[in-house]
Amino acid sequence: MKECVQLALLGKGKTKTNPTVGAVVVKNGRIIGRGYHSGYGNPHAEIEAMKDASEPLEGSDLYVTLEPCSHYGKTPPCVDAIIENKIKRVFIGVVDPNPDVTGKGIDKLIEAGIDVFVGFNEELCASIIEDFTKGVLRKEPYYTLKIAESLDGKIATKTGDSKWITSESSRTYVHFLRSISDAVLVGVNTVNKDNPRLDARMIDSDVNPYKVVLDPHLSINMDTILTNEYSDRLIVFTKHEYKKAKELRERGAKVFIDESEGERIDLDFVSKCLLEEKILNVFVEGGSETAGLLIDAGKIDRVYFFVAPKIIGGKNAITSVGGDGIACIKDANELKEIEIKRFEKDILITGKLNDYKEYIVKLTDKVRNRCSLGL
Amino acid sequence: MKECVQLALLGKGKTKTNPTVGAVVVKNGRIIGRGYHSGYGNPHAEIEAMKDASEPLEGSDLYVTLEPCSHYGKTPPCVDAIIENKIKRVFIGVVDPNPDVTGKGIDKLIEAGIDVFVGFNEELCASIIEDFTKGVLRKEPYYTLKIAESLDGKIATKTGDSKWITSESSRTYVHFLRSISDAVLVGVNTVNKDNPRLDARMIDSDVNPYKVVLDPHLSINMDTILTNEYSDRLIVFTKHEYKKAKELRERGAKVFIDESEGERIDLDFVSKCLLEEKILNVFVEGGSETAGLLIDAGKIDRVYFFVAPKIIGGKNAITSVGGDGIACIKDANELKEIEIKRFEKDILITGKLNDYKEYIVKLTDKVRNRCSLGL
Repeated sequence: MKECVQLALLGKGKTKTNPTVGAVVVKNGRIIGRGYHSGYGNPHAEIEAMKDASEPLEGSDLYVTLEPCSHYGKTPPCVDAIIENKIKRVFIGVVDPNPDVTGKGIDKLIEAGIDVFVGFNEELCASIIEDFTKGVLRKEPYYTLKIAESLDGKIATKTGDSKWITSESSRTYVHFLRSISDAVLVGVNTVNKDNPRLDARMIDSDVNPYKVVLDPHLSINMDTILTNEYSDRLIVFTKHEYKKAKELRERGAKVFIDESEGERIDLDFVSKCLLEEKILNVFVEGGSETAGLLIDAGKIDRVYFFVAPKIIGGKNAITSVGGDGIACIKDANELKEIEIKRFEKDILITGKLNDYKEYIVKLTDKVRNRCSLGL
Repeated sequence: MKECVQLALLGKGKTKTNPTVGAVVVKNGRIIGRGYHSGYGNPHAEIEAMKDASEPLEGSDLYVTLEPCSHYGKTPPCVDAIIENKIKRVFIGVVDPNPDVTGKGIDKLIEAGIDVFVGFNEELCASIIEDFTKGVLRKEPYYTLKIAESLDGKIATKTGDSKWITSESSRTYVHFLRSISDAVLVGVNTVNKDNPRLDARMIDSDVNPYKVVLDPHLSINMDTILTNEYSDRLIVFTKHEYKKAKELRERGAKVFIDESEGERIDLDFVSKCLLEEKILNVFVEGGSETAGLLIDAGKIDRVYFFVAPKIIGGKNAITSVGGDGIACIKDANELKEIEIKRFEKDILITGKLNDYKEYIVKLTDKVRNRCSLGL
């Protein structure tokens, strides 16, 4: 099942609103086929693994990280193909977190006389589809916040200087994180001040995530890289149908008008629009106020704090997370599943603010218990 | 020599402006005596080790982390005792960093016909006397800054709430760090707002470091723990001979009047007065502006950042290091010898901003080269 998870991760960043899934076919104790979901609209992992098989499938076992689908989506139901190929046993990591379909694929396999075992390495299998799970449960994208700060929590000096706080290794890793995201989100000030590319060039990736810009007054500079070179990957949220919106659309950008009250962009509107655009993984890169806005709203699911071991200091320097902030320490949202990595001298502290894994694991337990063949 | 260093560390926090030193006596391949400098005015490590010896000293070897003294201080010269006791060989970690006496003890030993080997585990032996080295070279105490902050570099919320950001383990370790310091330094706002004890009660230590308060307008609250219970351990720096100064002195506190121009307390004046009070190790505990003041002035030699894995957020929350700060990232002072530790969920990032070790190691190299018996 661990090999299935590794296969699944090959699809990370390519499956849009679909989950990442990996599968292997085993016969006589040997893996005879491997597959993963390689992109939205492409065949599912189970199908790929069966196609990849080097021997006849009849009587073999299928291992798959996620419950096979039983409905028609972009592709026909996987359970039908499993039944047709006379697979003998199916080992499933976790169930489908979508309450409308949970257990349905399993039921259909059992009805067809296939032995089904549910719940293998659930924690691991669940951890690779937390984004998908949030999508189906909350109808929202999965938001990951990246911060590159000094030891004292600053992302720029009092004069606004911010290049570079972190090391080249840290920045390279950020490009990797972009490459497995569907979109990068920033505030308009970051665009106008830094004129960033927000791509993954440091890892030579041809993946170029969408650039989402929160721009209430549509003050985006029209001479930036995003509004020219990358305008077809640009998605702008603003509060009114400003004149500039038309020009942006002519350049290929998408402009969404948030007509809610208040000065700020309504993040629920952003979430809704992004999901409609098949954007499931959003990588939030700042600046300070944008990070604060999303943190205040509880939207951030995971954080990556790259801490450079240097001190910037200054009460007028720019803090990594602005916004309103909390009033009482006891209300502070604490990271779970903290990991610490080193990138040259930098320290990466990463962890989760929201948990969707536990939900899938519990759901899997329920299905396992009602499934007579479960272990 | 590593055992000598461990012995030396037993004296940390007790030797005032003296260095911490450890020594062992070895005879026939066995340690027969151990000693360390246990407190200002007490016998030096070499003397303690020789006193501790379980066999006659004649013909034995002495290992000591620091060059033995050859002058009269609070105690008679150690080299005389070494010669009298007919020690055969002396192994020295590093030379005395005080340029007035460097190598003099070694010369005297060599003249008396003792084999002297200079430079063993120099890095380690030098690292335990960086405070002493700064004292003799710069005529300044060694300043260590402690910060307890959130992941986003805040030490309090927008409402000023700060209890508790870090875990109990982190705070216990802070009490240990206080116990090996001669004084704890804070700004007056921290005293008036938090009414802290600044002692080492969490580790049941009876060491109660001096409390140094920077208080330009002498606005210290006279009902605090520091101004009552701990007034005999209190040292206040202010800008004028305010009326309150007399009362503080009556309660046993020391009040120093900094008559320099400017609103802020002159840190060079502070350094001078503290060293005169035999305060070598100063543990700076905030708040934000005090930390900034010392960072801006380049006074901080070592930092301990306890980072709690939680986000406070807010552009009006209180940053860990205030003050003026730097203007350009490239001017940021970078930590050396970074170490990362975990305390429950907290992450401790510690490192040095100033280096005095290298100076001692180089000086040791010079003496070793001119010493014909050196290895």
